[in-house]
Amino acid sequence: MAEEKIEKRRIMLVGTGLVGMSFAYSMLHEKGIDEMVLVDVNHDKAMGEAMDLQDGMVYAETKMKVYAGSYEDAQYCNVVVITAGAAQKPGQSRLELVKINASITKGVCEQLKKNGFNGILIVANNPVDIMTYVAWKASGLPKEHVIGSGTVLDTARLRLELGNRLGFAESNMHAYILGEHGDSSFVSWTNSYIGCKSLLEYLDEKHISLMELQNIYVDVRDKAYKIIDLKKATYYGIGLALKRIVSAVLNNERCILPVSSYQNGEYGKTGYFIGTPTVVGSDGASQIMRLPLTENDQDRFNKSFDTLEATIRDNLGDIIDLD
Amino acid sequence: MAEEKIEKRRIMLVGTGLVGMSFAYSMLHEKGIDEMVLVDVNHDKAMGEAMDLQDGMVYAETKMKVYAGSYEDAQYCNVVVITAGAAQKPGQSRLELVKINASITKGVCEQLKKNGFNGILIVANNPVDIMTYVAWKASGLPKEHVIGSGTVLDTARLRLELGNRLGFAESNMHAYILGEHGDSSFVSWTNSYIGCKSLLEYLDEKHISLMELQNIYVDVRDKAYKIIDLKKATYYGIGLALKRIVSAVLNNERCILPVSSYQNGEYGKTGYFIGTPTVVGSDGASQIMRLPLTENDQDRFNKSFDTLEATIRDNLGDIIDLD
Amino acid sequence: MAEEKIEKRRIMLVGTGLVGMSFAYSMLHEKGIDEMVLVDVNHDKAMGEAMDLQDGMVYAETKMKVYAGSYEDAQYCNVVVITAGAAQKPGQSRLELVKINASITKGVCEQLKKNGFNGILIVANNPVDIMTYVAWKASGLPKEHVIGSGTVLDTARLRLELGNRLGFAESNMHAYILGEHGDSSFVSWTNSYIGCKSLLEYLDEKHISLMELQNIYVDVRDKAYKIIDLKKATYYGIGLALKRIVSAVLNNERCILPVSSYQNGEYGKTGYFIGTPTVVGSDGASQIMRLPLTENDQDRFNKSFDTLEATIRDNLGDIIDLD
Amino acid sequence: MAEEKIEKRRIMLVGTGLVGMSFAYSMLHEKGIDEMVLVDVNHDKAMGEAMDLQDGMVYAETKMKVYAGSYEDAQYCNVVVITAGAAQKPGQSRLELVKINASITKGVCEQLKKNGFNGILIVANNPVDIMTYVAWKASGLPKEHVIGSGTVLDTARLRLELGNRLGFAESNMHAYILGEHGDSSFVSWTNSYIGCKSLLEYLDEKHISLMELQNIYVDVRDKAYKIIDLKKATYYGIGLALKRIVSAVLNNERCILPVSSYQNGEYGKTGYFIGTPTVVGSDGASQIMRLPLTENDQDRFNKSFDTLEATIRDNLGDIIDLD
Repeated sequence: MAEEKIEKRRIMLVGTGLVGMSFAYSMLHEKGIDEMVLVDVNHDKAMGEAMDLQDGMVYAETKMKVYAGSYEDAQYCNVVVITAGAAQKPGQSRLELVKINASITKGVCEQLKKNGFNGILIVANNPVDIMTYVAWKASGLPKEHVIGSGTVLDTARLRLELGNRLGFAESNMHAYILGEHGDSSFVSWTNSYIGCKSLLEYLDEKHISLMELQNIYVDVRDKAYKIIDLKKATYYGIGLALKRIVSAVLNNERCILPVSSYQNGEYGKTGYFIGTPTVVGSDGASQIMRLPLTENDQDRFNKSFDTLEATIRDNLGDIIDLD
Repeated sequence: MAEEKIEKRRIMLVGTGLVGMSFAYSMLHEKGIDEMVLVDVNHDKAMGEAMDLQDGMVYAETKMKVYAGSYEDAQYCNVVVITAGAAQKPGQSRLELVKINASITKGVCEQLKKNGFNGILIVANNPVDIMTYVAWKASGLPKEHVIGSGTVLDTARLRLELGNRLGFAESNMHAYILGEHGDSSFVSWTNSYIGCKSLLEYLDEKHISLMELQNIYVDVRDKAYKIIDLKKATYYGIGLALKRIVSAVLNNERCILPVSSYQNGEYGKTGYFIGTPTVVGSDGASQIMRLPLTENDQDRFNKSFDTLEATIRDNLGDIIDLD
Repeated sequence: MAEEKIEKRRIMLVGTGLVGMSFAYSMLHEKGIDEMVLVDVNHDKAMGEAMDLQDGMVYAETKMKVYAGSYEDAQYCNVVVITAGAAQKPGQSRLELVKINASITKGVCEQLKKNGFNGILIVANNPVDIMTYVAWKASGLPKEHVIGSGTVLDTARLRLELGNRLGFAESNMHAYILGEHGDSSFVSWTNSYIGCKSLLEYLDEKHISLMELQNIYVDVRDKAYKIIDLKKATYYGIGLALKRIVSAVLNNERCILPVSSYQNGEYGKTGYFIGTPTVVGSDGASQIMRLPLTENDQDRFNKSFDTLEATIRDNLGDIIDLD
Repeated sequence: MAEEKIEKRRIMLVGTGLVGMSFAYSMLHEKGIDEMVLVDVNHDKAMGEAMDLQDGMVYAETKMKVYAGSYEDAQYCNVVVITAGAAQKPGQSRLELVKINASITKGVCEQLKKNGFNGILIVANNPVDIMTYVAWKASGLPKEHVIGSGTVLDTARLRLELGNRLGFAESNMHAYILGEHGDSSFVSWTNSYIGCKSLLEYLDEKHISLMELQNIYVDVRDKAYKIIDLKKATYYGIGLALKRIVSAVLNNERCILPVSSYQNGEYGKTGYFIGTPTVVGSDGASQIMRLPLTENDQDRFNKSFDTLEATIRDNLGDIIDLD
């Protein structure tokens, strides 16, 4: 048989819970990927999920091969997405959860390293900014090649909400939620735009009170809780957010996304990962976009960063090397 | 403000379990639909699901508006998809389940009728061929406008499996699983083709035993059980199968799909719905394609049909009018 | 036969030259449209073009029906795109061309009016801002329902060029070319952004000279001439720009595009059409986004507007009613 | 800067006439390709075309880089498409044209060989079956890696026409035009299907005369002449046909297309290229599907093959090595 003349593109998903699988399912609509490997500590689960995805393949846009695999396949993969964390259990403190998920993330990344993974690593385990740091430490990858989902989903919620309330396409709402993916995140309203128009100026012209913005932020911040309250979990939104990041990497888009990326002082802090607008392409997270923050917003950023640095330093020293 | 000049296209999903939502989530990749209404007996659930889908909208291809609604919205919908059935409980007989789901389906369809729904109705509740009959009776719609998911998923599995084992694109594997969606279904091998080549001739030329086909059929038939064994449920495959049917209706494709459609004697039987190759377009299930069956296959079809007719006549007389 | 339950969506193209046909050909990749009618003063040409497009339909994404038609079909169309202008001939002055194309545009729009067209009208004839005015006058449509292609293509060129030179996705380059589609257009650099970062601040931080921007503008402004010099015409870029506008209307995107829209004083001028950032949806061009211009840029805008107003008032009085 | 972790996918188009460019323009809607190189003997033309395509890129689905290049780029390309032939001139005999295009095709392929091209070669120059042979000889590539566009366009026309006349989706019309792309081609009606139903049986049941089929074939065969008569050239249909073939290669679809492929006796003939149903994937044209022809159809095939063999042997001996 004649030789195949196209280099295969492969992605791996580690963790086949509803978040991971919502990502995987959405990838059936993305062309240009040849194989998707599903890995789960419960290999049976991964096999079942692969079979369920395969079933729709005749009606999907992609020609991708989907199968349950193992870490050994990582050496052939361009991108690995990790969604393998545990969920908070009743009576369990947040810090206990952090330690458990840090151990899981570390274990996964050591396996990837051991099996020669040398591509782009996308981390969605929560708390995501901390887990991205753990993944970087344990994987041995360059820091640009490790990307957390950061505030990509939070920002999508913000843009949708702004678009709906003000009557514009969400694609024209340019605004970011910055900081840790969690309650200490914030919107930089002074760096927000409708098309090329300052959002604050627009509101002023339309006599819309700034309180409205605060309401939008609160709604957006609390949306995850509300969805969990209503349907017990959230997974479709984050599934599409992960697809967006992976697509930016595979197609070398060099687009700006508020992923959790390694800080080199762009916002005055160094050494950890946090949600900031970052250029994402097939060389990973190559550049952080520096925005002029108000004093208040810089304070918020500092607090958000300091909290997660402290969480790591105070709790994860016996799991990963902190130097 | 100036008038909108484009008539809206709306679809409704009744039942926001994992099957329904996998369908809904995949529709975020289908352009040309303006609104998707989610309806559930648990309205909170529907609200949570709508919010979770909205969250990914900035990164999805569609500009569709998704919201939790009520049956009153049905009057404006072009297509309604029902996935609202109950699952089998331990200790519950299959017939008890049939009665429970028939009541649910009837209730949904009476609501649709009461609210003036006048579009195409797609039924995915199980046992699907029986529920499609119930839906037809209770909705008051013309029989061409009521379509069951039939063996569309089974057929997708078959085509994938054939393609994988024989080394062809599944899109070139032309074969159907016919009959009731369930264990009495069968493949009409004599009407199966690879491109324009008879599958049986191809196997003969390649010295592949017919036993191989039987193995493929058994694997395909039992795949749902195997997936349920591995991951406790199946929903992605059926989600894409439902997207395929809805897309055929919305785009007036007039394509042939093995949906569950009303029999007018095309295969020798009359008066009920069963999986047969049917032309699907914006006028619903307009024509059943008649294939020459072998005597054995005709027997299989008759048994499959008779069983479901008997199930209906013996059990559903106090739920719907059987005349 | 059962009734069709989906309202058809139809678009019409008037003028089947290479610009119009590049638009039409690209629409084979847009789902959700049922019919495309091609109209040309040379009906044979329209028939040939329809047949050539049909030939690829099996391999296209859309299921659209394409056919050569007449103005009578306009009453059923949601959107009409006009690309029916003449090209400049040797020895012909620009003003002579204006008059010829104004007559053609007027003739087309009177036919649309006579046949009851009541949808959204997209004008791509050159000089496009003037022709959009003529189309508005002759069609009798509300001013929001008449949209010129404006500086949508110029802006696409600008964003691509900025993205390439600075190393970002063009989708993150937010900047507009404003004013008349032609040599008097200008970039509002003070309203230009990379993601949510001021372009001018970015250049400053990176020590990139503002001269570079001027070079980019000159390259972009002269690109049409350069392409015409190299390949004698331009049509693919404008084809995709028209697809973008039509898609915004059909999907009611409410996105901001620098189309040629009727001025109500948003930029200090009134009564004519010119390229300004405008919200485009299924109600047409519903709102112009007001940007704060520098004094220089406001002068440029005024000159651009005044020139085209003067061209209309001085030359088209015997073709259309100027009141 | 961190290393890019995704191997680039590149395609090259040689010949930027309207056929080649219609292919190139349609590729802006295909995701998963990183670069497209345009090569033309008139390098200015290629530059102009690349610029025109780039202009629409902001509004296209792909993130592909398009540029004018040279044969030296071929070493990095996965697929090269050749559309570089001359058109017939008044007073020029068909055989003169064959010789001219053979020289052009040979020259292109020698350049590809010299520059180390080692991918899949798609030939669309006419007469395409002859030029595919020339390309194979001159490129030094394995015969499976050289693919002519064959009767892919003719077959698309046939399927559309059948679908339209009989009222089915063209995607369900399974039928091929076989033989040389030209007047000696023929439809194998006995191997034609609507879904899984024999076309001839369907016509019989519906009392549609076989004359109707002959009319359809004649219409399809003469459609190219008719389009040329109406619009002077055909290019959109062939553009999408080429996109279909390239997509099958890039995505390793292993789908069956009636390309012009090297005959190894599957239809009783050996040593030349002709339109037969062939499996196309990233290893090229890997397998010809053998269909049982009627005696008449086999005669037609033989005549078609013999004619093109004779044309080659009698005329091209001084251009390429015939052994």
